[in-house]
This record gives sequence, C-alpha cells and structure tokens, in this order.
Amino acid sequence: MLLKRMLNQSSPLDRTFQALADPTRRALIERLSRSPASVSDLARPLAMSLPAVMQHLAVLEGSGLVVSEKTGRVRTCRIEPQAMSLAEEWINARRAEWERRLDRLGNYLQQLKVDGGKNGSDE
Amino acid sequence: MLLKRMLNQSSPLDRTFQALADPTRRALIERLSRSPASVSDLARPLAMSLPAVMQHLAVLEGSGLVVSEKTGRVRTCRIEPQAMSLAEEWINARRAEWERRLDRLGNYLQQLKVDGGKNGSDE
Repeated sequence: MLLKRMLNQSSPLDRTFQALADPTRRALIERLSRSPASVSDLARPLAMSLPAVMQHLAVLEGSGLVVSEKTGRVRTCRIEPQAMSLAEEWINARRAEWERRLDRLGNYLQQLKVDGGKNGSDE
Repeated sequence: MLLKRMLNQSSPLDRTFQALADPTRRALIERLSRSPASVSDLARPLAMSLPAVMQHLAVLEGSGLVVSEKTGRVRTCRIEPQAMSLAEEWINARRAEWERRLDRLGNYLQQLKVDGGKNGSDE
C-alpha cells in the first residue's frame, strides 16, 4: 500500500529520495553502478527472499533510477542516470544557495572589520 | 510510529534521504538554505497547521539536516550542511562509478575500431 501510494501521488524527486532511503535499495544501486545485472545475480548476495528483492527493484523502477528488460527468462536491470541527476541537481542548488549566503556573511564581516579599522584610526 | 521507527533503526543516510523525500520538507530546506528562520516564519507560507510543520521539522532535525535553538519564546532553525554532504557524497560516488564504466566501454569500443582497422589493412 505504501508502494502504491508512493507511485501514484508523489513527485519524481519524492520517489527518487524515497527510493534511496533504504540500505538494500542503495546496495542494489551500488551494484548496478558497476554493471547491469540479472535479478537473480542481484538477489544472490542479499540476505532476503527473491520476492523481497523484487519489491525493492519495483520501488527503484518506479523512481526511474533503474530500468529492466526481459530477454527469454532473464530480467536484466541497469541504472538510468537521469533520475539520480534530478536529486543531484536539487542538492547542488541548495549548496549553491548556502554558499552564496556564507560569502555574503564573509563580505559583511570583512566590511565590519575595514570600517572598524577606519573608525579606530580616525577617532 | 513511522517517525519513531525512522529515528531509531535507520542509518544517517536512510534518514537524510527519507527527510528529503517530502515536498514540504524540501520547501523548508530551500527556505533555510537562504537564511535561518523561526518556526512561525517557516510555517507562515505553508498551507498546513503549525503542529504539522513542527512534525516535519522534527524529521529534519532527526536527520541532522536542520538544527534549532530556542531563545526566549522563539525557536530558530538553520541548515546543518554536514548531513546533506553525506547524501551528496553517496550520489557522487555512484556517478564516479558509472562514468568509469562508460569510459571503459568507450575505450573498449575504440580498441575494437583500431583493431578492426588494423585487420582491415593487414589482411
């Protein structure tokens, strides 16, 4: 039910961050960042049932972070970097914002120091 | 209950991504990236009750993305960039991995082309 709600009502960024908020799903992404893999290859090192792994993969596919393709009886998964870029861009925009703020604060403190110096020598 | 489970059992990265998986919490982070703000300033533009806003702030504080301090009757919130850096580093590491993979693939294709060219001229 949680999965269904996530897939129906949330924005792409919600789904991406939600997908990344689980250690198993991050492990799957880490594995797939190295190379595409079949569902059974992905499941092998994990201490959980195949259906549990498939549910995590469904969340990853719902978020767009992973795509899969079935050839014969083998489903192969691979990373789709676009969805991760969205998350990356959002974080970068926040960082840019607070770095600008720190710069402004630094300039202000510098100005205070300059003005303080002036006052000190003038008076 | 979900909040309690999140705060008790999950890793810092789980909590960070979970905290970012909600549009209201991202709006709060966007606002706080520009400057610190009181809880009532944060709540004003949002179409929800103060307790609902405070619950979102509790999730953000639980993830370490936001810290707050009470002076008299005013609680002021600000961004704590460290937790965001964790998420950023995790994403960057994945990107580095798949870019290395694409480079290897590119080199391999280049090599095929060179070898193909050689074979073509030798034979």
